[in-house]
Amino acid sequence: MSQQTPLPAGAKTSGGRKYTFASRMAKTPKSFIREILKVTEDPRIISFAGGLPNPELIDVGGVARAAADVLAQDGKVALQYSTTEGYRPLRQFIADRYKKRLGLDISPDEILITNGSQQCLDLIGKVLISAGDHVAIERPGYLGAIQAFSLYEPVFHPVILHEDGPDPAMLAHELDHYPVRLFYGVPNSQNPSGVTYTEERRKELAEIFAERGTLVVEDDAYGELNFDGVSLPSFRQYLPEQAIITGSFSKILAPGMRMGWVVAPPAIMEQLVIAKQASDLHSNYLSQRIAYEYLCTVDIDAKIRVIRARYRDQCTLMVSLIKELMPASVTCTQPRGGMFVWVTLPDGISSMDVFEHALKEQVAVLPGIPFYTDGGGTNTLRLNFSNSTPEKVRTGVERLSRVIRQLDRH
Amino acid sequence: MSQQTPLPAGAKTSGGRKYTFASRMAKTPKSFIREILKVTEDPRIISFAGGLPNPELIDVGGVARAAADVLAQDGKVALQYSTTEGYRPLRQFIADRYKKRLGLDISPDEILITNGSQQCLDLIGKVLISAGDHVAIERPGYLGAIQAFSLYEPVFHPVILHEDGPDPAMLAHELDHYPVRLFYGVPNSQNPSGVTYTEERRKELAEIFAERGTLVVEDDAYGELNFDGVSLPSFRQYLPEQAIITGSFSKILAPGMRMGWVVAPPAIMEQLVIAKQASDLHSNYLSQRIAYEYLCTVDIDAKIRVIRARYRDQCTLMVSLIKELMPASVTCTQPRGGMFVWVTLPDGISSMDVFEHALKEQVAVLPGIPFYTDGGGTNTLRLNFSNSTPEKVRTGVERLSRVIRQLDRH
Repeated sequence: MSQQTPLPAGAKTSGGRKYTFASRMAKTPKSFIREILKVTEDPRIISFAGGLPNPELIDVGGVARAAADVLAQDGKVALQYSTTEGYRPLRQFIADRYKKRLGLDISPDEILITNGSQQCLDLIGKVLISAGDHVAIERPGYLGAIQAFSLYEPVFHPVILHEDGPDPAMLAHELDHYPVRLFYGVPNSQNPSGVTYTEERRKELAEIFAERGTLVVEDDAYGELNFDGVSLPSFRQYLPEQAIITGSFSKILAPGMRMGWVVAPPAIMEQLVIAKQASDLHSNYLSQRIAYEYLCTVDIDAKIRVIRARYRDQCTLMVSLIKELMPASVTCTQPRGGMFVWVTLPDGISSMDVFEHALKEQVAVLPGIPFYTDGGGTNTLRLNFSNSTPEKVRTGVERLSRVIRQLDRH
Repeated sequence: MSQQTPLPAGAKTSGGRKYTFASRMAKTPKSFIREILKVTEDPRIISFAGGLPNPELIDVGGVARAAADVLAQDGKVALQYSTTEGYRPLRQFIADRYKKRLGLDISPDEILITNGSQQCLDLIGKVLISAGDHVAIERPGYLGAIQAFSLYEPVFHPVILHEDGPDPAMLAHELDHYPVRLFYGVPNSQNPSGVTYTEERRKELAEIFAERGTLVVEDDAYGELNFDGVSLPSFRQYLPEQAIITGSFSKILAPGMRMGWVVAPPAIMEQLVIAKQASDLHSNYLSQRIAYEYLCTVDIDAKIRVIRARYRDQCTLMVSLIKELMPASVTCTQPRGGMFVWVTLPDGISSMDVFEHALKEQVAVLPGIPFYTDGGGTNTLRLNFSNSTPEKVRTGVERLSRVIRQLDRH
């Protein structure tokens, strides 16, 4: 390939051969996080760039016991093909937990087990988004959703996210001026910003959705990680026929098992099940059985309280250090839960410059740019606090502050 | 809903609400097998309708030991997020096995771990098929591929499948008259027909593909289940830059763990990895680790020989009973491997009638209709022999023969 000739859009070479890919592939943002995480795999680097749960809080012994029990008691069934919808007792467990935590009446028939909550986004895109359809999303918005939906070629309508939730006037404006098929958001401890919508804002948004019949996809990956243990209402409570909820065991049990689920009204669920079957027949059944066995034999609420307390302490430390050490012109969010703090730098400081300079100091951060579907956000950073020790949080923020102070002077 | 009003295409109700789905959903065949399998869940029924491996041949103890070892030795890592491509030692194991079994030089970088081989079909559709693209497929063709690809809205070109493989003249004609993006086929022990392409036919087809640059998707879910242990060449051998192979541990290890993989040239692999990441980040990492640990500690070739011998005996019994008991006008394939026999009834006998009458006799069969993308096949049946005892094969074929003889007289 010493002599490169221009290729048509969508064509790639392998050796000498050219391939043409589906047009949707050209619309997918290259995973920025993926590239950055490759750079930061060096264990000497303090990484705030990723989004990993703290491995110290994964109950390996509990999972091992559950796995041994499932395989000893019902191994031939647990290793065989199973139903597309998923293991019914696990779906019942999830339904019961919604009742207990949020007071929601959800039938197990409205729950489909998926490969982590990321797969929910792919299935929702498949079922609901035709090329050119309009989709409203928070600004900044979750990169995984932007990637999953982009393959179905929607037009994104970003809605500015404030500390109390998406801007209602901007949302109403977009819904009134475009035939928006759905709104996607993360009301609890949003990724990337750490913002939790207030209850008042939820009600206000729900009215906007109700009047216009807009579907709401509520990504609730972090719903159990609210530091104070107080759960705010789901959109399902206000809009039972318009709300889809995605959930995940990745943050409270173990991400490596890829266990998530989607909740949807029956007519939408019927289509999601068809799409799920075409996509991979069903989710890992052995892991579904292990997860259920585990959830039935441990005190999951006690485990979640431990995770919340640890993340709260890490978050409090990170936010206080940012306020103490960074220039006053740097602002950050005050997360009520989750795994991320969102930092806004003074105008004119590029987060890519911060990334590059910080990496030389052995600290990795995630520039906020890929969370914007319309460009912008070049002065924002996402910092992960769940997967560091307090010492690393302290050292990392100290170094990062020095880097930002230096850039701020130029 | 006592008063039903007509809905626009693609609209569905839930309670009183109407939903509009993506146009692609209207093009997906409802899963016929799914509906039929629901009818046949009654354990008193002898089912030839499904496609399950024999659970007696699943090595539950071996998997339990592997799971215990992985969790004891490296549990925190095995339960954490991992890479999209999959566990590298497992990909190396798969590469080594291709070298040993088929003499193929494949790099682990050309292998992506998926949720069973069904997910390969979804990812291939995502990456390669735009709406309206032309796709050639065997006639009859694998229903799972028809479902997965249909969501990307291709135009199917069925190519008649003979006992020695797809019809070369018909294939060449379709490729010469339409811009066919890819051919999808199952060269080894095809689902549904049980046909294995001869080596001569493979060469002839490879020349047709080579001359026209057509991509070939070789679904090799049953490649290890050839009764005589003799592996015929992969299209990758003839067409290294044009062949994509999909593989699966479902038939040799355990389907419930949903472990499959796709092999593709680097430029296609790059796109498949992007699509995989958007679809579900990565496959179940705990199960990848368990599968690898298992494969390294057992004699997998010995296990596969046991599966082959059992399935060969069941197949031989089923075919001989069909020839002995059914009217001479009924024909069936002579599988060299896999899990299915394909039965063609005399013209005028409907497989749906056979299905209904056989069900009354407590025998379930699968009408061949959903395997045809262009209609037709109304007098064909797929019979599964892997998941029955010899006694059930005998009793089931006896009852089925009575049903067909009765229908043949009318």
